[in-house]
Amino acid sequence: MIGLNKKTEKLKYSLIRVLKEEATKYSDVINLTIGEPDIPTPKNLVEEAMEYGKNNQLNYAQAGGSEKIRTLVAEYYNKKYKSTYNAENVVMNVGASEALSSCFKTIINPGDEVVITSPFYPAYPPMIELCYGIPVILNIHETKFKITRKTLEKYITPKTKAILLNNPCNPTGNVMTLEEMEVVADFISERDIFLIADEVYSSLVFYEFYSFASFEKIKDKLIIINGFSKSYSMTGWRIGYTLCPERYRKNFLNATFYTLSCPMSLSLKGAEIALEKFSDFNTADIYKERAEYMASALEKIGFKVLKPKGAFYIFADYTDLSKLDSFKFTMDILEKVKVAVVPGISFGTEGYIRIALTVDMEKLKEAVKRLEKYFKAI
Amino acid sequence: MIGLNKKTEKLKYSLIRVLKEEATKYSDVINLTIGEPDIPTPKNLVEEAMEYGKNNQLNYAQAGGSEKIRTLVAEYYNKKYKSTYNAENVVMNVGASEALSSCFKTIINPGDEVVITSPFYPAYPPMIELCYGIPVILNIHETKFKITRKTLEKYITPKTKAILLNNPCNPTGNVMTLEEMEVVADFISERDIFLIADEVYSSLVFYEFYSFASFEKIKDKLIIINGFSKSYSMTGWRIGYTLCPERYRKNFLNATFYTLSCPMSLSLKGAEIALEKFSDFNTADIYKERAEYMASALEKIGFKVLKPKGAFYIFADYTDLSKLDSFKFTMDILEKVKVAVVPGISFGTEGYIRIALTVDMEKLKEAVKRLEKYFKAI
Repeated sequence: MIGLNKKTEKLKYSLIRVLKEEATKYSDVINLTIGEPDIPTPKNLVEEAMEYGKNNQLNYAQAGGSEKIRTLVAEYYNKKYKSTYNAENVVMNVGASEALSSCFKTIINPGDEVVITSPFYPAYPPMIELCYGIPVILNIHETKFKITRKTLEKYITPKTKAILLNNPCNPTGNVMTLEEMEVVADFISERDIFLIADEVYSSLVFYEFYSFASFEKIKDKLIIINGFSKSYSMTGWRIGYTLCPERYRKNFLNATFYTLSCPMSLSLKGAEIALEKFSDFNTADIYKERAEYMASALEKIGFKVLKPKGAFYIFADYTDLSKLDSFKFTMDILEKVKVAVVPGISFGTEGYIRIALTVDMEKLKEAVKRLEKYFKAI
Repeated sequence: MIGLNKKTEKLKYSLIRVLKEEATKYSDVINLTIGEPDIPTPKNLVEEAMEYGKNNQLNYAQAGGSEKIRTLVAEYYNKKYKSTYNAENVVMNVGASEALSSCFKTIINPGDEVVITSPFYPAYPPMIELCYGIPVILNIHETKFKITRKTLEKYITPKTKAILLNNPCNPTGNVMTLEEMEVVADFISERDIFLIADEVYSSLVFYEFYSFASFEKIKDKLIIINGFSKSYSMTGWRIGYTLCPERYRKNFLNATFYTLSCPMSLSLKGAEIALEKFSDFNTADIYKERAEYMASALEKIGFKVLKPKGAFYIFADYTDLSKLDSFKFTMDILEKVKVAVVPGISFGTEGYIRIALTVDMEKLKEAVKRLEKYFKAI
């Protein structure tokens, strides 16, 4: 047997996908695993894109997207988040996932460290490791999910290439306060390191939200990752983007070009239509209602729940209810009451489960009933 | 300025794309640069896919593709090329480009060598280098585009991880003979190295064609890259695939998963429809007619032309006609007679130009007239 790349050999398949696929083995399961919106893409957006696809040969797109879509993205950010981007700051990618993996490819040299906060999106560490970078885990679970200057200072070394923050946060549903962001921006502005802001849930916020894009002082060190999967319920379209300092544009462009040439033409068209005609599409209120209901219902059961402020997840501490580790706990719930959720260990934090609020209220209520039944039985 | 990844910093944007974009500055230009079929995707395939897109929410696809599309791909290969694949050998990718970049990510450790033949597809060396591999250039221009055991032996070292062959070949339009393939297969079967067969032009062949998939003795060392861009004129759909030994399946799957999660759902659907209902779609005869015309017309002008056997390119030696280097030569032709072609140096071989046969006969005839005019004038 021929040896493969050592990093690839160590990779494990996504636990979220494992649970999602495990759930399909049960009938009548309530699947709260994968972070996929249940609210459909706007119907007229889809129809217009599909009509375009019928009437136009789908040729290779410009690598990184046309000037038109890049201008639309820049304007969207400027209008919504008070930034000063133009088309030259934008590179279109195959979803925020590829935006992120290509970002790491662009900036990481072997041995470089990327600081990520725990709990983290499970793909962050393997994506960094595949580029021979080292994920440095900054545990914010211990500081009540707050980032402070002190904790940042503790984790920064001469090898630090970037700090990666996911705001709003998957899995916690937390949103950073302006004060917290000021601390981070000041910290970055004093150093030669990048801030990678994964803002893919930026349009799903229940109260205030600020983008790092509005902090002028870190403009030459800020890389923003975003996309259409969550904001427009366009997961299967695989269309996302990178906002980067203009001086690095050609590097980001070449990294994605030599990974996959260019995004899918119809998805680029869909993104154009979304920004031109559906700027008022917003599903945040729907998720807010679900999040408030779920947080309160879970607390009644005995979970400890961080107040959700955005995205569509509840990250719930079950340590007062069960002594099982999070993988065994989620498998036990799935087996006994057919509710599928994701173990905290996927996100680097034991004693928690992540619940995706991507089913309607009726199903959420049924899930709560089943969880109540589960805890009555044990 | 923060330093970036050293490999990414050295990348150059594709010369093919440079020439393609340069060509758009002229009116009335005949653009024979990029390898993009002009024959449209079958109309009914497109309509069925777009109807599907209208009537179904496009959710995340299974990473690497569903069992259905993977079974269809395996059956397609088995029927057409006498292989013995099943769904577990197949990973669906975002085009053959991503199939290839993820393949390198899966198998290359830093310092590993990948032997490629010159002239080569221009993205091969940077893709290998981005994975810290070393492209080793085996010049087959000197052996009349034939691969022999002697040349292979010369380039193999203990660091060789794979030999990559593009058959049919971009840019030469050459197709390997069965005898030549036997030599390669024997050579591989005696060693612990992979054979990567980029067969993306496999359906565009004018005479005989054999796939490496039919060589049972290298089955556990063979990685095939293919896709729908050239065979079904689906470039903008970005859908391709990897056929790999089953024992490596999870590694190939994880590499693509941690690059971009999954391919675009509608493109996977389009690929399904193509294989289920359009197995008789074949554009080879159209390109054959063009290739024969162009080869003969160019020879009359004074080019030396390798007989085209597949794909849709002519790789023409102009050294009897001009002493300019290939970049200057192509720019001069573009400026003076508005015909855009790609310089041989893009493919690692000076003294040649690559002509893409992706316009109709009328335009090809006009291109020939312009080239005649160009050579009369100098």
